[in-house]
Amino acid sequence: MVHTAMTRVRCQISVSLDGFVAGPNQSLENPLGEGGERLHDWLVVTDSFHRVQGREGGVHNADSEVIDELIQDIGAYIMGRNMFGAGRGEWDESWTGWWGEDPPYHTPVYVLTHHPREPVEMQGGTTFHFVTDGIESALAQARRAAGDRDVLIAGGASAVQQYLRAGLLDELYLHIAPVLLGAGERLLENVGDPELEPVEVVASPAVTHINYRVG
Amino acid sequence: MVHTAMTRVRCQISVSLDGFVAGPNQSLENPLGEGGERLHDWLVVTDSFHRVQGREGGVHNADSEVIDELIQDIGAYIMGRNMFGAGRGEWDESWTGWWGEDPPYHTPVYVLTHHPREPVEMQGGTTFHFVTDGIESALAQARRAAGDRDVLIAGGASAVQQYLRAGLLDELYLHIAPVLLGAGERLLENVGDPELEPVEVVASPAVTHINYRVG
Repeated sequence: MVHTAMTRVRCQISVSLDGFVAGPNQSLENPLGEGGERLHDWLVVTDSFHRVQGREGGVHNADSEVIDELIQDIGAYIMGRNMFGAGRGEWDESWTGWWGEDPPYHTPVYVLTHHPREPVEMQGGTTFHFVTDGIESALAQARRAAGDRDVLIAGGASAVQQYLRAGLLDELYLHIAPVLLGAGERLLENVGDPELEPVEVVASPAVTHINYRVG
Repeated sequence: MVHTAMTRVRCQISVSLDGFVAGPNQSLENPLGEGGERLHDWLVVTDSFHRVQGREGGVHNADSEVIDELIQDIGAYIMGRNMFGAGRGEWDESWTGWWGEDPPYHTPVYVLTHHPREPVEMQGGTTFHFVTDGIESALAQARRAAGDRDVLIAGGASAVQQYLRAGLLDELYLHIAPVLLGAGERLLENVGDPELEPVEVVASPAVTHINYRVG
């Protein structure tokens, strides 16, 4: 990865070899859709993932080191409403995300939505802010919060597509899982024809990591 | 790659990051469809590609070495009719493929078709055989011709899909080009859910090579 003092706008996301970031039929019970949890088989076994969740254990491997490097410089996250929760329309104020009392972000998180809501402060430094005036406003707020650290577009597909299509993404880091989901939510469609350059590749038996610089 | 004395059935093919092996609107004038030639930008500059075509020049790089290794042990090719030519229905006997008098195969090539045709012997050791009784028959013939060398499924998407779906493919070597075609012919659909293991990854600035062992 290219390290500079300037804030970069990055995305890192697990994708199946056939291009899906979630399986079909996403639901409250099955947020990643049918088979979608297979996208993270490589991740959930790592010590890095355990640590981010405040747990002990996990294996230390090449994939851990990728994750450690990816999360170290993040000053703010942006995510789509679909990633924050399964609900639609007006907010159910009791919903505070999928991640329990201490979400694994530990920074401000800007949630793209059409429905206003007061910020929700969680444990461990994560505060969810709800942005109703578009992706550029969310990015401006996230940049301000991040200082000289990076802004990470956490997902889902639609949020990543919007930033990519708008030319606002600097780096797209894909974790290509060796699975075929056959159906679900595609990441790379309706994003135009951005210039992409693979600037870092890390291989493990479980996944292939490719970081693309977006031109 | 895993080298053994046993014939492996392999596929190697360039694919866009969004999963296409050809762009939209394939035609006689544009066999790879709109934008499809960008899938081979990494390939056509290499010395290996020049050499296979009987020409001098080209650059020697990491991609050359991938190609050199991939083509060294191939004893026979199988391809779909769509890869052999743009025609459909009864044969135009004057059509002998896209590749001129001395095609870059230099072995027997088995063409999957519904329309019988006598074998066509080209210069340089390439003979096109036309197989009308299905993919297993073509594979049996190709295995016989290959001896202890490998059989390579050359494409296009439909031929690869049929062998993958039938559980007849041992290795799928993808050259993931950093381009988005947006539309065209997808490689990995309707192939079921084969077990895939990335066993070799080679990175260059132009393309990411991943060889998957198919379980």
